[in-house]
Amino acid sequence: MSERVFNFNPGPATLPYDVLQQTAADIVDFQGVGMGLIEMSHRSPEFMNVVEETEALVRNMLDIPQNFKVLFLQGGASSQFFMVPMNFLDKQKKAVYLNTGAWSRKAIAEARRFGKISVAYTSEDDHFNHVPSQDQYVIDDDAEYLYFVSNNTIYGTQFSLFPETDKPLICDMSSDIVSRKIDVNKFGLIFAGAQKNLGPAGVTLVLIRDDMLERINDNLPTMLDYRTHVNKGSMFNTPPCFAIYVVREVLKWMNKNGGITGIEKNNRDKASLLYAAIDRSDYYRGHAAVDSRSNMNVSFNLPTAELEAKFIMEAAEQGLKGLKGHRSIGGCRASLYNALPLAGAQKLATFMQEFEAANPV
Amino acid sequence: MSERVFNFNPGPATLPYDVLQQTAADIVDFQGVGMGLIEMSHRSPEFMNVVEETEALVRNMLDIPQNFKVLFLQGGASSQFFMVPMNFLDKQKKAVYLNTGAWSRKAIAEARRFGKISVAYTSEDDHFNHVPSQDQYVIDDDAEYLYFVSNNTIYGTQFSLFPETDKPLICDMSSDIVSRKIDVNKFGLIFAGAQKNLGPAGVTLVLIRDDMLERINDNLPTMLDYRTHVNKGSMFNTPPCFAIYVVREVLKWMNKNGGITGIEKNNRDKASLLYAAIDRSDYYRGHAAVDSRSNMNVSFNLPTAELEAKFIMEAAEQGLKGLKGHRSIGGCRASLYNALPLAGAQKLATFMQEFEAANPV
Repeated sequence: MSERVFNFNPGPATLPYDVLQQTAADIVDFQGVGMGLIEMSHRSPEFMNVVEETEALVRNMLDIPQNFKVLFLQGGASSQFFMVPMNFLDKQKKAVYLNTGAWSRKAIAEARRFGKISVAYTSEDDHFNHVPSQDQYVIDDDAEYLYFVSNNTIYGTQFSLFPETDKPLICDMSSDIVSRKIDVNKFGLIFAGAQKNLGPAGVTLVLIRDDMLERINDNLPTMLDYRTHVNKGSMFNTPPCFAIYVVREVLKWMNKNGGITGIEKNNRDKASLLYAAIDRSDYYRGHAAVDSRSNMNVSFNLPTAELEAKFIMEAAEQGLKGLKGHRSIGGCRASLYNALPLAGAQKLATFMQEFEAANPV
Repeated sequence: MSERVFNFNPGPATLPYDVLQQTAADIVDFQGVGMGLIEMSHRSPEFMNVVEETEALVRNMLDIPQNFKVLFLQGGASSQFFMVPMNFLDKQKKAVYLNTGAWSRKAIAEARRFGKISVAYTSEDDHFNHVPSQDQYVIDDDAEYLYFVSNNTIYGTQFSLFPETDKPLICDMSSDIVSRKIDVNKFGLIFAGAQKNLGPAGVTLVLIRDDMLERINDNLPTMLDYRTHVNKGSMFNTPPCFAIYVVREVLKWMNKNGGITGIEKNNRDKASLLYAAIDRSDYYRGHAAVDSRSNMNVSFNLPTAELEAKFIMEAAEQGLKGLKGHRSIGGCRASLYNALPLAGAQKLATFMQEFEAANPV
């Protein structure tokens, strides 16, 4: 058994060690039934119970109203990029998108295949270094929905306030779901790939408000119609059983570790430590504008690319792994998802100070 | 640790115990890197290596020619039901389907959304108790492809000989992939959900011949165009990392246990034991016609529904689990996928004889 590192990977990402250990036990023999977790029929009472418990835990964690359905789908957030417009748009219908990063840009490209897309705001000219405030964009009166990405992993920006609109709000919450309290009532549809805060890659959480189901186009391929999965409780076909199970374990761990309130505070504390390290001098430069800073991903640069490479290498030697920035903007990125311990952020902040002292420019 | 049962589940299904133990270790700490399997970046050298090895093992196991691409997708076989016609058909194009069970019927329904579908053969009037021989159907000259399901899990039927045609052959091989030697060259596209012979639910193996890529329609949603995944080596978006890893371990286990030849013989031996038990008297009635019998799933009835319920209950008490037939045809079903030990089939065959003796009609 090697020493456990602090894992700053952007996703798939660090998970609670307790969850990994419980998962390992259940993989070999699920709760003493004499077969492993991934060998059980998805229609067995044991596994049906896993799905029901996972849904109940998600509902409780995010205080999801009864007029929302909770789905566990496959295909990642990337599949939601086309499923959303395929279900809700046609060539005569319009939707408004906020373009705040690589993932919104991809979603916009997919949506254009299905309907009229109005990009009400883009921060692309500023290398996506901020998210807009409400007064910076206008939502067309004839829009079917307003689409945005709550947290932009690559650039380290995050909406602290959500858009206010009477249109259905659709949000890609892949990188900050269950990281903070939200008012689910504001949304028509929320989706999130699990592999950051919720669990492993392989399952996508979708929350959909009942009235949205009435707007869905007819004659879609069965698997691509949200109603199929609503009607069958995510069990129309074999679901990604393992990933759903891990989501359940992660949510149970959250409940034992302060719940959403405690987790949110911990996330804020971790991010504050790193932003303080960045703001202490001009050595580190944060990519995000100060009022758009993310509590999930802290993207920053050092004075030179050589120093960045050295920083990443020496940090790794100290057990601080996964700090390389996304290939599209380079530099460094520390992802601070729920399961990253405060001690990891503390150690990284200390290392940043030491590295700066040891490597002056 | 409870005693391990013999698991006759139809999928998700039994997996090799060695694989479960190795998986459990890697879940907690992957090969000593200080983080778990499901916490690693999908773009890390360690995980990229998993994907490459898995592909190499699949290629070797099925002797896949170089002019085929190997993909690991999400969404189950059910997503292939619409992806195949979405990629290869339009309203002017025709495809021929053989209707041999519930899964081909679903695939036909999805295909009809996209093109002209000719059902050249159906065994539906005979409760899908057989698959056709070559002389029982005609393939239209203008067909884009011929689609069939190699093994029908619910009814326990299997093609022992594949259709011969100069049209591209497209096969749903979900329930007998890597259970026997096949000549991949005969096919244009093969797909298989992993959760029977290959691994856990959550990944779908797709083998696609290069010339098929040239027939794909333009302007498909990015995630639904096979070329997207070919061009990115199944890494266009975050893949189902865990499921791919388990597939690798299962293939390694196969290589240690006789390879495809040894596995195929073992599967034949297991099925023969059960069919012999069925044929010994009139007590058990096999659902499949004799010349269509599957080596993967043995579906059978007892004299009465009451005896079937008793049989399933008493078998479970002896550690023979998962024998309940599919809800659509009732009765019993024993699934004998690769990882089901010969001892399991032996124990079941013995139990069948004992049960018959103890419960005469």
